[in-house]
Amino acid sequence: MTLTILGCHSATPRVDQNPTAQVLEMRGHLFLVDCGEGTQIALRKNKVKFSRIKHIFISHLHGDHFYGLVGLVSTFRLLGRETELHVYGPKGIKDAITLQLKLGSSWTNYPLLFHELDGKDPELIFEDEQVSISTIPLRHRVYTNGFLFREKPGERKLNLKAAVAAKIDQGYFSKLKQGYDVPNRDGTIISNSLVTKDPDPPKSYAFCSDTAFEPSIVPHIKGTGVLYHEATFLEKHVHLCEETKHSTAAQAGQIAAMAQAGMLILGHYSGRYANFEDFRKEAQLHFENVALAEDGKQFKL
Amino acid sequence: MTLTILGCHSATPRVDQNPTAQVLEMRGHLFLVDCGEGTQIALRKNKVKFSRIKHIFISHLHGDHFYGLVGLVSTFRLLGRETELHVYGPKGIKDAITLQLKLGSSWTNYPLLFHELDGKDPELIFEDEQVSISTIPLRHRVYTNGFLFREKPGERKLNLKAAVAAKIDQGYFSKLKQGYDVPNRDGTIISNSLVTKDPDPPKSYAFCSDTAFEPSIVPHIKGTGVLYHEATFLEKHVHLCEETKHSTAAQAGQIAAMAQAGMLILGHYSGRYANFEDFRKEAQLHFENVALAEDGKQFKL
Repeated sequence: MTLTILGCHSATPRVDQNPTAQVLEMRGHLFLVDCGEGTQIALRKNKVKFSRIKHIFISHLHGDHFYGLVGLVSTFRLLGRETELHVYGPKGIKDAITLQLKLGSSWTNYPLLFHELDGKDPELIFEDEQVSISTIPLRHRVYTNGFLFREKPGERKLNLKAAVAAKIDQGYFSKLKQGYDVPNRDGTIISNSLVTKDPDPPKSYAFCSDTAFEPSIVPHIKGTGVLYHEATFLEKHVHLCEETKHSTAAQAGQIAAMAQAGMLILGHYSGRYANFEDFRKEAQLHFENVALAEDGKQFKL
Repeated sequence: MTLTILGCHSATPRVDQNPTAQVLEMRGHLFLVDCGEGTQIALRKNKVKFSRIKHIFISHLHGDHFYGLVGLVSTFRLLGRETELHVYGPKGIKDAITLQLKLGSSWTNYPLLFHELDGKDPELIFEDEQVSISTIPLRHRVYTNGFLFREKPGERKLNLKAAVAAKIDQGYFSKLKQGYDVPNRDGTIISNSLVTKDPDPPKSYAFCSDTAFEPSIVPHIKGTGVLYHEATFLEKHVHLCEETKHSTAAQAGQIAAMAQAGMLILGHYSGRYANFEDFRKEAQLHFENVALAEDGKQFKL
């Protein structure tokens, strides 16, 4: 699982500060999460192959999270894309994109499918054999969802040496990976646990931006391997949180601790700060394993 | 008159190639012309003061000319702008911008005034004591206007030495600049032409992007000091012009020659070219004084 931060700043794009966008690589999928203005440039800078993006998740319809979507959708067309693109986001996102395409008398020559969200409870929005993705209802000034990306448990790992020694035919290997006991060439039933090992534990990533401090999300993200939680402010500006419906780094740390996450990544810093080390320090008052998002930074998770 | 090229490339933004946007400084005004994605970043890079932009002109509603507008409008709000902003562009532009602001539950805290265009003939769309601005109907795949920016004739230039020698009181100087004959301290009427000189000839700038080769625009831009004319293709790709409704550099040169322009600036290059010197050469087959637009280049005109 690899997370590439394309942008991790709030409000207006600046020369060296991109608004929110991330690419999550999970089990062969490349998921784009949020898409502020200039995301297509950030994708190019980070050498992300456009054609691998088949699912885009938009948390909410503030500009710093979705004004780059229409340009990316148009660029896909100009690049001759033919494969489906699925866009998940708040109700209204389809109108916003299609109106602009219509005004330019352009439509996509690939299937563009919108999945509009308006639920108030966590909802499974994508699932295949490898991963599942659910919404995480957040509390912001407008309707906002975070997203929980979860790998499904993988197959058991074959201990090839032990399987050969136990005289098991190769034809049974896929059964072994599925957890079955199988007969060997002598007709003896070999117990699965003797020739396989547990698979790697499934990984998970919870994306929570933008949101006020909201402990009610904790059950939905409990035990997540990695939690990205917005940290717009430091404690000295905590009084701004309630009006703007944003969080401090310390509040993000508290959520990570309550959720018993494996790791916390902070981002969505307000433009008023020049240095972000204090964000880490304040979050670490509540939770130890804290990393800071940076534009262009890649986390191998 | 100063023209700053923020972006001069066509179709999709690339890491070092911005879509169309220009800032024209004319008689104290700062006019923004077109606004592709990332224009607000280009404005910052070129150190253009956001608050000086009061009028934005959008030629047409293709993404590479207007997808940056909504972000700029939002940023103006975040920066606490209070002064009016006037946006001139094709019918539909108001819906596109206001729908997106509405979806984000945000509105501007400054007056945002749209002037929607749907005329087929040149139309005066802005005028004050210093400048006038008219549309130039172009021929493209969607409804498109160029814009003709014209200085009004300035005041006559006072020859201070001559005026003092002719014993004219300072109180008459503004009358002299307006072209009047005035009495001197002896009561003698002094002929205006003895103590003033002609003002600089008014400057003008015609912006023509995007358009197929369209000689019918020539009367509207006749004698313009500076003509920016799109040059998407070189002659070897002239067969693409009719379908895409774009021009070659040679066609831009022909328009400049027919219009007896003072200077031609080329831009809106297709992404298929790595080098633009051939654009200049091909235009110069028809018109001598050719310059190439470059992102970040400033023309003092």
